[in-house]
Amino acid sequence: MSAETRTGGYQVVGTRPIRHDALDKVTGRALYGADVHLPGTVYGKVARSPHAHAIIRSIDTREAEAMPGVLAVITAKDLPSLTDKLAQLGESVVNLRDLSANVLAPKKVLYHGHPVAAVCAVSTHVAEEAVKRIQVDYEVLPAVLDVLEAMKEGSPLLHQDLKTHSMGKTAEKPSNVASHFQWKLGDVEKGFAKAEVVVERSFRTATVHQGYIEPHNTTARWNPDGSVTIWCSTQGPFAIRSQLSEVLKLPVSKIKVIPMEIGGGFGAKFPLYVHPLAAVLAKKVGRPVKMTLSRVEELLATGPAPGSYLWAKMGATRDGRLVAAQAKLVYEAGAYPGSAVGAGGLCIFSPYHIENTLIDGYDVVVNKARSSAYRAPGATNAAFASETLIDEICEKLKMDPIEFRLKNAAKEGDPRADGPKHPKIGCRETMEAARNHPHYRSALGGKFRGRGVASGFWINGGGQSSAVANVMSDGTVSLIEGSPDIGGTRTTAAMQIAEVLGLRAEEVNPMVVDTDTIGYTDGTGGSRTTFATGLAAIEAGRDILCQMKERAAKLFELPVEDVEHADGEFRNRKDPKKTLTFKAIAEQMGQTGGPIVGRATVQPGGVGPAFATHVVDVEVDPDTGKVTILRYTAVQDAGKAIHPSYVEGQMQGGVVQGIGWALNEEFIYDEQGRMLNSSFLDYRMPTALDLPMIDTVIVEVPNPGHPYGVRGVGEVPIVPPPAALANAIYHAIGVRIPDLPMSPRRILEALGKA
Amino acid sequence: MSAETRTGGYQVVGTRPIRHDALDKVTGRALYGADVHLPGTVYGKVARSPHAHAIIRSIDTREAEAMPGVLAVITAKDLPSLTDKLAQLGESVVNLRDLSANVLAPKKVLYHGHPVAAVCAVSTHVAEEAVKRIQVDYEVLPAVLDVLEAMKEGSPLLHQDLKTHSMGKTAEKPSNVASHFQWKLGDVEKGFAKAEVVVERSFRTATVHQGYIEPHNTTARWNPDGSVTIWCSTQGPFAIRSQLSEVLKLPVSKIKVIPMEIGGGFGAKFPLYVHPLAAVLAKKVGRPVKMTLSRVEELLATGPAPGSYLWAKMGATRDGRLVAAQAKLVYEAGAYPGSAVGAGGLCIFSPYHIENTLIDGYDVVVNKARSSAYRAPGATNAAFASETLIDEICEKLKMDPIEFRLKNAAKEGDPRADGPKHPKIGCRETMEAARNHPHYRSALGGKFRGRGVASGFWINGGGQSSAVANVMSDGTVSLIEGSPDIGGTRTTAAMQIAEVLGLRAEEVNPMVVDTDTIGYTDGTGGSRTTFATGLAAIEAGRDILCQMKERAAKLFELPVEDVEHADGEFRNRKDPKKTLTFKAIAEQMGQTGGPIVGRATVQPGGVGPAFATHVVDVEVDPDTGKVTILRYTAVQDAGKAIHPSYVEGQMQGGVVQGIGWALNEEFIYDEQGRMLNSSFLDYRMPTALDLPMIDTVIVEVPNPGHPYGVRGVGEVPIVPPPAALANAIYHAIGVRIPDLPMSPRRILEALGKA
Repeated sequence: MSAETRTGGYQVVGTRPIRHDALDKVTGRALYGADVHLPGTVYGKVARSPHAHAIIRSIDTREAEAMPGVLAVITAKDLPSLTDKLAQLGESVVNLRDLSANVLAPKKVLYHGHPVAAVCAVSTHVAEEAVKRIQVDYEVLPAVLDVLEAMKEGSPLLHQDLKTHSMGKTAEKPSNVASHFQWKLGDVEKGFAKAEVVVERSFRTATVHQGYIEPHNTTARWNPDGSVTIWCSTQGPFAIRSQLSEVLKLPVSKIKVIPMEIGGGFGAKFPLYVHPLAAVLAKKVGRPVKMTLSRVEELLATGPAPGSYLWAKMGATRDGRLVAAQAKLVYEAGAYPGSAVGAGGLCIFSPYHIENTLIDGYDVVVNKARSSAYRAPGATNAAFASETLIDEICEKLKMDPIEFRLKNAAKEGDPRADGPKHPKIGCRETMEAARNHPHYRSALGGKFRGRGVASGFWINGGGQSSAVANVMSDGTVSLIEGSPDIGGTRTTAAMQIAEVLGLRAEEVNPMVVDTDTIGYTDGTGGSRTTFATGLAAIEAGRDILCQMKERAAKLFELPVEDVEHADGEFRNRKDPKKTLTFKAIAEQMGQTGGPIVGRATVQPGGVGPAFATHVVDVEVDPDTGKVTILRYTAVQDAGKAIHPSYVEGQMQGGVVQGIGWALNEEFIYDEQGRMLNSSFLDYRMPTALDLPMIDTVIVEVPNPGHPYGVRGVGEVPIVPPPAALANAIYHAIGVRIPDLPMSPRRILEALGKA
Repeated sequence: MSAETRTGGYQVVGTRPIRHDALDKVTGRALYGADVHLPGTVYGKVARSPHAHAIIRSIDTREAEAMPGVLAVITAKDLPSLTDKLAQLGESVVNLRDLSANVLAPKKVLYHGHPVAAVCAVSTHVAEEAVKRIQVDYEVLPAVLDVLEAMKEGSPLLHQDLKTHSMGKTAEKPSNVASHFQWKLGDVEKGFAKAEVVVERSFRTATVHQGYIEPHNTTARWNPDGSVTIWCSTQGPFAIRSQLSEVLKLPVSKIKVIPMEIGGGFGAKFPLYVHPLAAVLAKKVGRPVKMTLSRVEELLATGPAPGSYLWAKMGATRDGRLVAAQAKLVYEAGAYPGSAVGAGGLCIFSPYHIENTLIDGYDVVVNKARSSAYRAPGATNAAFASETLIDEICEKLKMDPIEFRLKNAAKEGDPRADGPKHPKIGCRETMEAARNHPHYRSALGGKFRGRGVASGFWINGGGQSSAVANVMSDGTVSLIEGSPDIGGTRTTAAMQIAEVLGLRAEEVNPMVVDTDTIGYTDGTGGSRTTFATGLAAIEAGRDILCQMKERAAKLFELPVEDVEHADGEFRNRKDPKKTLTFKAIAEQMGQTGGPIVGRATVQPGGVGPAFATHVVDVEVDPDTGKVTILRYTAVQDAGKAIHPSYVEGQMQGGVVQGIGWALNEEFIYDEQGRMLNSSFLDYRMPTALDLPMIDTVIVEVPNPGHPYGVRGVGEVPIVPPPAALANAIYHAIGVRIPDLPMSPRRILEALGKA
């Protein structure tokens, strides 16, 4: 990695060109998973459990198989049996047996919607009808949906063989607690002893969904040579490949994943769902099989963000210094272990320098769909607790909430609660920008109005990326990458190589290709893409420059050392008037040694974390409990905004999702654990009519680990909203609501009116 | 380029694995141009001239346009007007105005089948009907089809502004002779003075077609941003791109050519035909346009191999040494300049060391379709003359024809007639192998039987190639290349990188991708692909090895200098028992620095020419004139046969095409210049029933310009057959037939029976 980090004077970085995929997307020509139509395609549908917890006594598929038009029915027996083994798949560790069992339940169903069989037929309608004719004999078991209930001795056990891992040890008896961790910094008891103000509270957050527009989909072709081709909507084509490799017991090179355009993911488009079912059905019937989830299936049986129980306690001195903080985080894993509780623990106190902290985290299985990542996974739940408590401390100390935060703001070298020290960060700068914003200095006025502040942290990701760049003879470049484009990442990668090469953004043609055509590239997630794939693009550009210098040297008839590249030109150092443009060298490639192709693979270490501070004004209707957002300002450190419009878009999108999480969204279950609101009519996401314009302020504290200072920007904006809104609602109505969503019902309850 | 040229001890090179595209091709899943089906596709057809030579007075398209289902009609006015300028496009120099005028005639039609308009309609049938309703008012001109006629003063002129270029000068008056060259070596007059035997003769060869199975096709999409996507069957996707760039006046980066699988090309799938018509129609109608030629259109209006007139004279001493040779080659360019006469001149005497040579070549336009390349373009015509004369000399000297050839065989350092000296070649070795073959020593027996021998030379091509290779975590590699696969080149490139990396051929997955995804790569032609794209694959493999050595060094905890790669393993030089396999390093990529991607671009100089000697036995039926081929043995220097089966396949295919050219194939025209036999019923190509098994002998004289010694193999096998057959027929019936094809009619004429 180059140590050179520029802070200004860019030609392309920081500008706002039209995105390369804009035209295809606005004209409807962009191809999404549902647009894949192979000759001979047949259609798959999934039979799902109506019970939240049950033993599968038997499955009778005969009636379904006998239906005209039905080509095949599969159950878990048709999947290779996998052993109970942890595997690193992409960015996460997965138990292979769980991975397969979630795709098709082998013996027990663990949540309402758990797949038990899959059908393939000549049409989706026939497949849907056939699904209804699959007879499953269930022995229904009591379900447990609440993490605290699930932790209790005597609670229904989801897995008879699941034993708590805690601090390097495994418990003897089975439990629903999959794991427990504890992180200590300093001495929290001594810390609290020094504190002059101590607050503590329990919180709950509901299970919520990412709510992407495009449902999961897969078209699979099982080729006669035993290889498999998969077209799908995914954030991580290589992650889908590696998971499929395990579930289907095929080498990765036998699986080609072709990522289509993606209609939203937010972390949820990494796991396997119908992919292996489509593949196995395709093998059975010898034809391509296409499967697309309905919205009901999406809400029932893909990975929501975990609901959680949190308890936290924070202490400060009278002069406003945080001296101790403690938290207990209990996150729903859903049916199989693996919630984002670790990331929650890592984020909960990270915007602050607190010498004494103690964090306990619990990953607890419950009879809900296996949880999945959702934009800064785990951090939003955690910040809801800590940022509410900070507001309480500020109230007690009668201190301005931003001034208090500034007094305690984390800076470079401060240790995080999980150990590592912060690198160069822009925590303080976001708080200062929020404090100085006209919004924060504006009068609020009116009854039932309140202003809330919250900060948030996200660690951001690095990972592995590859890029190849081909120089065209007309002086443009095609950029081949493996990162599905979410939020304009095709363009941000293109802009970075354009900057290196002295080209305009439009002179780079970025393309996202399949898993055979580009080197390994981690998925588009963890706010890593503009950072790491961007870095790969930069390095591929530098590789081109090296080759171009050699060509220039040949044309100048000079040793290559005498050629320099500056201001987009190649110059003869000895006679700086002699210059060659990029275009001139590109035109002469064929006469100076042949094609020029740059390539890079990166696995960068210098990830720059992200901080955000949000300010929100609300008005609460005391009669209906409805919260109206009057004004919202999101401040965030982008390191360097490659394309400011897309950074703003990410900030606005994150805030909106955080508002939905805060005010309305929740999975509602009946007593048997059946989800009651699996549609967008009943699962209430905010619409444009519910929202004001979200103001954004981009702060730029360059990340020294990236040549242009890039930090990931996609995730941290979802972290502060619930806490900021909770604080605003408190200041509006004088009552703290510790549970998400702060729906009209809860507000009325808090006002004693429900 | 590495000087290291291995001669043996290969693991993969020289073996015969199943080709990577075999399964797709035998199961029908391989996608050819006709398999492209885009949503909303409409269909184009071409209106063609019924006259060989005429002025277009006017075109009335109204009736066609008024037809229900007709969406657009275009004429030459709809193409950008181009100036009369020579441009280097891919491997050849083309006059841009001619390039466009051949696609759609602007003012004059120059051959029967010349496109005058194109129609786009909702179906091919409607388009075909509309084509009939286009009214063209022609002023018919006299046509000239014979090159000698065309050269005469007063002959109808095809182009009023075409003036002969000769030896650096341009004539004052217009002519049908586009160009003339003359190459001298030594003093041919003095040479003939020394000769004790001199023979001379005139020859004619007919216009013939490559006869590939799959007709030309294009699906074009004109995108709203002004870019164009082209799916087509082509040997040169980058050549199609550069030609389209000129004809459509678009930058190359605005054109993406997606090469489909190709059902044969033999040199004829480089030029533009319907590609720009489909593109312009697509722009007009805003929908994808698909155009596929019929067989009639293929034979009428794509580029056949030029017919030719040849005169040659050779002289030898009584002891059998060639001392002088002279030739005049007159080739049909077809409607626009640019026949392969230069290559004919270059090849005619090249198998021999002759101190005194004089070669004159003439490129002459006639009212036939613009000629195109056909497998060793120009060389077959030329060798028909020279190899017949050599047989006559041998007869006069009573020398064995192979012994005579051996006595005069060209060797390294001998000058070619066009100047350059031969590099290391296997000319002598192929002659020796033919002499030593059981076939040559077998008795022929029987009446009307004869044995013929001929040798041939082809220069082979180098050009530019790119390759990218992605290492998979399971220890396999995907190989991305830009060379359309003809004759198994995907596999021969894969085998070469497999050899470098110590993998099996099956562990490399080769893919041919579009012009945006891979760096510039010249087309599959000139017998360059296994040589140059293979070299790119080798270099990409070496790039991988370098990176892998670094990873091994990291794992060994050693400096990289202490790691060596041998026998497919990475070894600690200091402790050779410590080894790491390719697979082991591949599995650990993610822990040692990220993905590994190799890339290479090459423009190799060390092209190795190809030589062949063929022996054929025939029996002539004196009553019907039918020639039965009793036995055929083709000997050829492959340098190193990467996949011997494919070399044998190329040899057999080339021989069969040469047999067709020799015995039956010819374009037949009426007096007005209209082609009379534009179907495969009337244009007689040999079938399996016409042929014996073609025996092949691969000689391997490694080319020092390639790490494994590869020479191109695809073209030279078509060079000797007509001459070998002519010699065999002479020895069978005692009469020399100097004109191709030596059809039953000509044989009977020669026997005085016609």
